[in-house]
Amino acid sequence: MSNIMDRLQSLGIVLPAASEPAARYTNYALAGDLLFISGKGPSGKPKGKLGIDYTTEEGYRYARLAGLEVLAVLAEALGSLNRVRRVVKIQGFVNASPDFEEHHKVLNGCSDLMLDVFGEHGLHARSVLGASSLRDHLPVIIDSVFEIVLD
Amino acid sequence: MSNIMDRLQSLGIVLPAASEPAARYTNYALAGDLLFISGKGPSGKPKGKLGIDYTTEEGYRYARLAGLEVLAVLAEALGSLNRVRRVVKIQGFVNASPDFEEHHKVLNGCSDLMLDVFGEHGLHARSVLGASSLRDHLPVIIDSVFEIVLD
Amino acid sequence: MSNIMDRLQSLGIVLPAASEPAARYTNYALAGDLLFISGKGPSGKPKGKLGIDYTTEEGYRYARLAGLEVLAVLAEALGSLNRVRRVVKIQGFVNASPDFEEHHKVLNGCSDLMLDVFGEHGLHARSVLGASSLRDHLPVIIDSVFEIVLD
Repeated sequence: MSNIMDRLQSLGIVLPAASEPAARYTNYALAGDLLFISGKGPSGKPKGKLGIDYTTEEGYRYARLAGLEVLAVLAEALGSLNRVRRVVKIQGFVNASPDFEEHHKVLNGCSDLMLDVFGEHGLHARSVLGASSLRDHLPVIIDSVFEIVLD
Repeated sequence: MSNIMDRLQSLGIVLPAASEPAARYTNYALAGDLLFISGKGPSGKPKGKLGIDYTTEEGYRYARLAGLEVLAVLAEALGSLNRVRRVVKIQGFVNASPDFEEHHKVLNGCSDLMLDVFGEHGLHARSVLGASSLRDHLPVIIDSVFEIVLD
Repeated sequence: MSNIMDRLQSLGIVLPAASEPAARYTNYALAGDLLFISGKGPSGKPKGKLGIDYTTEEGYRYARLAGLEVLAVLAEALGSLNRVRRVVKIQGFVNASPDFEEHHKVLNGCSDLMLDVFGEHGLHARSVLGASSLRDHLPVIIDSVFEIVLD
């Protein structure tokens, strides 16, 4: 894998500091070489639902922002994103109205980010669903699992 | 394990070709001997909610059809279903009204299929929830993890 | 790790017998040293939604009760909770109204239990979402993954 930190720079991506967990838990847990990352929402405290308050395009951007928060946790956990062997699994929770049907297009914001950053190692299994509501009225939360290179 | 492809035949099950991912991601990702399968819905593009548009019995059949799509991905990923060591985990997302309460009976359509096909190796941990909405108005999506025999 | 069964006693926690699976599946599935536990709700068959029928504080208590059901399954699966190496991942499904926004505070009921019981080994990655509905109108379901010490 090419140097991921260089790739971030060439993409114009500046990672935020990892946000604090919203409650009494940790940002990540390692089991073997699988790193489980806690659910992360976009920065900036946006509040609203897809299908009511936000368009699919806005949702896409929020999913990308949530993905950046995931990358920030990864960087904190691993020291370097170069230790990511592959993105394994992403679940997207989309705060959505009962008639919304473009959840997959929203989640693409996060999937595209992973492919941009990790190339073929960014390809992942994923699923997405509409949530009746999310903490702090966030529009989207990303739950994720990564395979990493152990020290 | 007996030959699973023979068992499929005796059950009268003909696997569909694996459907294309609905967006920019892959159908599956392997980490160690865990195979993570992307969320799959039933074939035929059904649209509707449990508790409004579909009965629990119809939901059961859609969950079984979604399970067939999962098996199709497995067969494509592994070459043969004989390489499945066990079904580990199934999550069911049921597109459901706020007062629906038979999500577990819907998910049984998928669980029963796994037991039919894999016998005792088909026993799995699982969970199920009601989604406010799902992509393309699908009635159910199955998210799954399998343990496989590595080459 | 200190003796967990002693710690349970000092916390005044008496584990219930593991509840039967609500449908055709098992309470847990082991893959390598990861133990996947099926979704568990609180005992007592409470029915209702956060944001409508229950306060956040009531939800917190239900999440703790659901966590006790998870521990009961763990004890049954492992013989002793001393074989838990760490709590890896918790997902909380909160039966919630469209405008509820304290899902994380509800899930703390389960997270705090894990920290009370397992100490630093109880720290876990987690995520939480609002479900439009849950089986049997349960207020909360906990889905979980543990790393265990193999025999």
